[in-house]
Amino acid sequence: MPMIQTTSEQRCFGGTQGFYSHESRECGGTMRFAVFVPPAAAQGRVPVVYCLAGLTCTHETFTIKAGAQRVAAELGIALVMPDTSPRDTGYEGATGDWEVGEGAGFYVDATEVPWADRFRMYSYVANELPALIAGNFPVDPLRQGILGHSMGGHGALGIALKNPDRYRSVSAFSPIVAPAQVPWGEKAFGRYLGKDRAHWAGYDATELLARGTFPGTILIDQGGADAFIDNQLKPELFETACLRTGQALDLRMHRGYDHSYYFIQTFVEDHLRHHAAALA
Amino acid sequence: MPMIQTTSEQRCFGGTQGFYSHESRECGGTMRFAVFVPPAAAQGRVPVVYCLAGLTCTHETFTIKAGAQRVAAELGIALVMPDTSPRDTGYEGATGDWEVGEGAGFYVDATEVPWADRFRMYSYVANELPALIAGNFPVDPLRQGILGHSMGGHGALGIALKNPDRYRSVSAFSPIVAPAQVPWGEKAFGRYLGKDRAHWAGYDATELLARGTFPGTILIDQGGADAFIDNQLKPELFETACLRTGQALDLRMHRGYDHSYYFIQTFVEDHLRHHAAALA
Repeated sequence: MPMIQTTSEQRCFGGTQGFYSHESRECGGTMRFAVFVPPAAAQGRVPVVYCLAGLTCTHETFTIKAGAQRVAAELGIALVMPDTSPRDTGYEGATGDWEVGEGAGFYVDATEVPWADRFRMYSYVANELPALIAGNFPVDPLRQGILGHSMGGHGALGIALKNPDRYRSVSAFSPIVAPAQVPWGEKAFGRYLGKDRAHWAGYDATELLARGTFPGTILIDQGGADAFIDNQLKPELFETACLRTGQALDLRMHRGYDHSYYFIQTFVEDHLRHHAAALA
Repeated sequence: MPMIQTTSEQRCFGGTQGFYSHESRECGGTMRFAVFVPPAAAQGRVPVVYCLAGLTCTHETFTIKAGAQRVAAELGIALVMPDTSPRDTGYEGATGDWEVGEGAGFYVDATEVPWADRFRMYSYVANELPALIAGNFPVDPLRQGILGHSMGGHGALGIALKNPDRYRSVSAFSPIVAPAQVPWGEKAFGRYLGKDRAHWAGYDATELLARGTFPGTILIDQGGADAFIDNQLKPELFETACLRTGQALDLRMHRGYDHSYYFIQTFVEDHLRHHAAALA
């Protein structure tokens, strides 16, 4: 069994909010993550929802700001919050630009130098981390859901669409739904994946829909006052692709809400209830 | 009307989470604070609860970590989160020690050099800020409650006991209930108030009870696994004083919980309901 190190464990809503680290094979170094285990885990293995954060965030961001533990405790769901990239890589250009490098892993397996060795957040989140979690926490790996915010929403949608047999539910807040068509994605995919845009399609939720749909309704919440909506998020591109492919989508626009965790905390209960219904 | 500057305003649970600053007379410089205005304020002035943070914290801490906006929105209560001290004072010794100086104002009006000019957090929180809030936000200044955590719990208890006509409700998480008898308080009071311990008593909740009780039940939640309980918090001192003076007290011990916001977020709903009942 791979080893994990416990940084801290604190009681929260009758469960345990823990912070941990381990040596990641995919990411070639120490990775940190957070897990909330609900009180229901005392009676047996519980469903688990992976929560992917956005640009500049860490494993702490959703854990501290989303207000999700209360609902997860009530519903009997474990939460896993990974970091958003490998850290302390020493790669030139890996720090100092919030849109690419550390804190901006974009949930892809990089193929380009220098990123290819350690920027493997797709395989880390989709494969390595779930195995680690199942081996060390009282979760049921057959009842997995995934959600994310912004870059993490892109990650959640892409990972679920590529692995519909491994996730029973997926949702996103303010996701980057078509990274291959917007500046954030073009910049990051260009650095991590190179110039061949055919390769990009394997990580673009809007394009992935053409290869296969997700067997369940995808829930997306989007703030109407989100400063990134027109330039980077473009939810209409995903909505159109869902209509074309028959993907069930519940896209909710929320007037006046922005891109922040004040938006996320407002609707996180709806998301966890969406997952709980599919993971029951 | 004193001017306030708006740093940001974001929608949250149908209300508005704002960050503001103003030039404080009491604190001799710019002070920052946060306010949550619930959706009910669209129909008229709402009750307001002041939320005082602990050592090392700012106006952001309770705002980001307590998960209070959801409940405040439901109950129709405004929340005000002040900073914990003046900032950028330039006083020798005002930074570098987390137990005294900036971030550690202890909600007293200092009398000693150099603190006396600006470390006036008692008058700031009890007088200046409520007037500013009533003039700039849709709150009802006749329906005020106050709560706090740790050093902020000391602040809330002391301010409420000294002004029982101005606060209808008071509660605290893990409060320093007897600052004059514990290392944190002895250090800070010694610096801010000088050697005359008779003067300290005016800011010590346990001693203030002998001068007069609060007309309502005081709610206190305390974590049983709190690392500071035996040395700095000593809830039993306040409990004994309440028994002696006839002060109604609901002191709840929570096994396994520590001093953190994971503890606070677990019980913040109970606190806001306690205030709402008194402020209705």
